[in-house]
Amino acid sequence: MLCRITLFFAILHTMTFSVTILGCGAAIPLTHRNPTAHIVNVHEKLFLFDCAEGTQVQIRRNHIRLQKIGHIFISHLHGDHYFGLMGLITSLHLLGREKELHVYAHARLEDIINLHLDSSQTILRYPLIFHAIDPDKEEMILDDKTLTVSSIPLNHNFPTNGFLIREKRAKPNIRKDFLVDKKLTNSDYRRIKDGKDYEDENGVIYRNDDITTPPKPSRAYAYCTDTAYFENIIPIIKGVDLLYHEATFTKDKAADAAAKFHSTANEAATIAKKAEVKKLLIGHYSARYKDLTELLSEAQEVFQDTILGVDGLTVEI
Amino acid sequence: MLCRITLFFAILHTMTFSVTILGCGAAIPLTHRNPTAHIVNVHEKLFLFDCAEGTQVQIRRNHIRLQKIGHIFISHLHGDHYFGLMGLITSLHLLGREKELHVYAHARLEDIINLHLDSSQTILRYPLIFHAIDPDKEEMILDDKTLTVSSIPLNHNFPTNGFLIREKRAKPNIRKDFLVDKKLTNSDYRRIKDGKDYEDENGVIYRNDDITTPPKPSRAYAYCTDTAYFENIIPIIKGVDLLYHEATFTKDKAADAAAKFHSTANEAATIAKKAEVKKLLIGHYSARYKDLTELLSEAQEVFQDTILGVDGLTVEI
Repeated sequence: MLCRITLFFAILHTMTFSVTILGCGAAIPLTHRNPTAHIVNVHEKLFLFDCAEGTQVQIRRNHIRLQKIGHIFISHLHGDHYFGLMGLITSLHLLGREKELHVYAHARLEDIINLHLDSSQTILRYPLIFHAIDPDKEEMILDDKTLTVSSIPLNHNFPTNGFLIREKRAKPNIRKDFLVDKKLTNSDYRRIKDGKDYEDENGVIYRNDDITTPPKPSRAYAYCTDTAYFENIIPIIKGVDLLYHEATFTKDKAADAAAKFHSTANEAATIAKKAEVKKLLIGHYSARYKDLTELLSEAQEVFQDTILGVDGLTVEI
Repeated sequence: MLCRITLFFAILHTMTFSVTILGCGAAIPLTHRNPTAHIVNVHEKLFLFDCAEGTQVQIRRNHIRLQKIGHIFISHLHGDHYFGLMGLITSLHLLGREKELHVYAHARLEDIINLHLDSSQTILRYPLIFHAIDPDKEEMILDDKTLTVSSIPLNHNFPTNGFLIREKRAKPNIRKDFLVDKKLTNSDYRRIKDGKDYEDENGVIYRNDDITTPPKPSRAYAYCTDTAYFENIIPIIKGVDLLYHEATFTKDKAADAAAKFHSTANEAATIAKKAEVKKLLIGHYSARYKDLTELLSEAQEVFQDTILGVDGLTVEI
């Protein structure tokens, strides 16, 4: 029993929360840089944010199991964010998937998926459950046992959403010395985790506060692309552990960025600073930038804890 | 003048006709093998046959100029033959294309293209001209100055066409010794090429047959995928210089091939032999085959002049 509890205890402390970048380019697929897609791993459940052309090959290349993806979130219907989706949906079917796949996107994407499937006379082997997002609303679109996902209205030249994925608050940890001293039943264990006091076989009562330590704070990842500089998102993403924010251009191209409703690296960093996030991850680089160091240094001038997104990079949260 | 004529003469004899394989896999994109797309170069005009996901990156990887593609032929609406098309259409737009792009496919593809463009509020900068193919008819779908393209009804579990691309018969070559002896005007040159006799300044008449040699025979490439073994195509592809025929399975999987309306390597070679083609190129391999040598040797047992298609291979015709 102790052994099982200790194992569970250990697992609780190593719960994965990571982001793997499958593509960090804008607009056009290049030989050295894929357009946008991120895999978010929360406690070994996989979530895909955007799905540009080539995403399924990037998933294979990064040794990620395709079938573990349960939920796909599409920010908007520009091709560099969704042209890989039909291929992925079809491959999951051909590879024998049976479990549900949830897709969250602008309502028009459902029409597109249905027209493709109908045109190839394909009846998927698995349930594909489509969730239409209202791009003008900030709302919770997924409420899972361990996490929530909310949509974030962005400011692009097209209806576009960012996403905020947040762990639910974990339960308190039972102190190690107490676990060693007492022989807890499963029921005792659950009750203490749920905040109850503990009474031992001699009738001694141990207050919950005395035998537990607070859980690690819950973690959050905000995914914000494509968007112009847009301060409205700041209260929504306030203090997140990791903010992905597009940085399509350097600041000398600020006029281009504004005209195309994209951001500069400087603007991404300004949002990160004002939102007091812990780390900033940049991406969605224009194809004009072969060398990305200027984008990184520009962001770091404003916000030191900036990570340069590159294809294949995994960031632990 | 002589110099210009000789140059023209030399160019006539080196007119490109080649096929570059951008993808030779079936169904699912793999890290080491893309699904189907071929670039056919006829006299430096580029034609794309099928356009699976990842095709535009394969085009870049093979140093082929995207904007030189003028005509795209889609065999059928299974994703491994067209899921890269919207990306390519969009990239050509983003890269500033102005000249026409012709797409030949089943009529449903036009609806798909229009829905994608409409959903992203994209108005293409260039004219996209869609040509609906009747999958049940063998008919000429392109009649150019230098070549024709005809559709070939195939036998798949879905309306599917192959394509036959054939150079038009070239004009006769003027004999080198005659070119050196006589000072031909442009007009003389064109008249002789058009089959007329030549009268020199002394009134001596030279018969066309005596001063020309026959042109090289015109060349043809037949592209046949996806299809079960289907002898109806034999009269259409008879004697072509290069036949691409799908070889999804080895012959021990003949029952699978038949059930899925695909061919074995043995069947591809049998078609090549019966059609008396000059060379056979195989491809569209099932993902089950990592090592392709068995597919090649099986085909070569029946038809020796078989080439194993692999991504990036260029075959000169």
